[in-house]
Amino acid sequence: MDYYSKQISRLIEELSGLPGIGNKSAQRLAFHILNMPVDRVNRLSDTIREARENIRYCKTCFTLTDSEECPICSNPARNHKQIMVVENTRDLAAYEKTGQYDGVYHVLHGAISPMLGIGPGDIKLKELIKRLEGDVDEVIIATNSSLEGETTAMYISKLVKPTGIRVSRIASGVPVGGDLEYIDEVTLLRALEGRVEL
Amino acid sequence: MDYYSKQISRLIEELSGLPGIGNKSAQRLAFHILNMPVDRVNRLSDTIREARENIRYCKTCFTLTDSEECPICSNPARNHKQIMVVENTRDLAAYEKTGQYDGVYHVLHGAISPMLGIGPGDIKLKELIKRLEGDVDEVIIATNSSLEGETTAMYISKLVKPTGIRVSRIASGVPVGGDLEYIDEVTLLRALEGRVEL
Repeated sequence: MDYYSKQISRLIEELSGLPGIGNKSAQRLAFHILNMPVDRVNRLSDTIREARENIRYCKTCFTLTDSEECPICSNPARNHKQIMVVENTRDLAAYEKTGQYDGVYHVLHGAISPMLGIGPGDIKLKELIKRLEGDVDEVIIATNSSLEGETTAMYISKLVKPTGIRVSRIASGVPVGGDLEYIDEVTLLRALEGRVEL
Repeated sequence: MDYYSKQISRLIEELSGLPGIGNKSAQRLAFHILNMPVDRVNRLSDTIREARENIRYCKTCFTLTDSEECPICSNPARNHKQIMVVENTRDLAAYEKTGQYDGVYHVLHGAISPMLGIGPGDIKLKELIKRLEGDVDEVIIATNSSLEGETTAMYISKLVKPTGIRVSRIASGVPVGGDLEYIDEVTLLRALEGRVEL
């Protein structure tokens, strides 16, 4: 890219290292940034640096946050006896968006994957078990409906069951509004297996 | 977005202000950045800030660069008597990628657009005319093939002609490899008008 000056090339290179940003988008972004007012660019640059510098795990649920304990764990209005286990902070956000869940969370930061060499010790499982020593009524497993997510769900349920705490798994099935015609067979079979009496 | 901590929300907000980045992509980017090593994030942040701080117009051709004169204008091996006029630095880069043009450029930073209220005084036209006082053989107009680009091309050719310098316009026509069936009528007519004898 010697048709751009060194700093422009470096900016394009850094931006194209981000996920989902190819070379064309990186160029478009770079020139957009170069045409933005200096103070807006500095704000963008500072926000990126500060967010990364101040980010840490919530001491209780291990979600990504910028304080010692996240807003959910430190909210006395939430039901702290109900723990939903998710793979990452984005999955937590997805459930928060529903606005209907008032329990708390536990973020694993991954799922067990023998293929990728990720074992139970590589995700926040010990930390979950430790939380169960407290006053907990139910563990809701909301890992993804993938091979890794299912493996992790099974592993967790085996760990929790001996404690006598209720363990549940979010339902698998046809998405609301989903057209059966376009849904894969595994999901269709899951929906059949999980049928409920009316 | 109160399901994310303040700094994560701010990061997502800043990123989604960039062109072509919606809320979903901004979230994906934000969590990617939060999981990157601190030194890589700082490098990204510094590159953005420094590129914007050091960017300026080349004193000769007005392309975006980080030195007083851009690498093309300061290259004695280029033909400085042939000036290709483009709308912006990305168009310059597009011609540089061909590797076949050895003249120099003039970057207008826009095109005349009565609709958007952009007149000849709002783009680097005076600066082009000033360059023509030097030793110039040809001005090649490579503005876009849009209404604005054509208007600008016409305007420039009227300005240059009285000086006796040769003025040319890049050809309009069917793109190489283009299937006639899928090409718009205006382009097809242009290609017909611009036909060359074999």
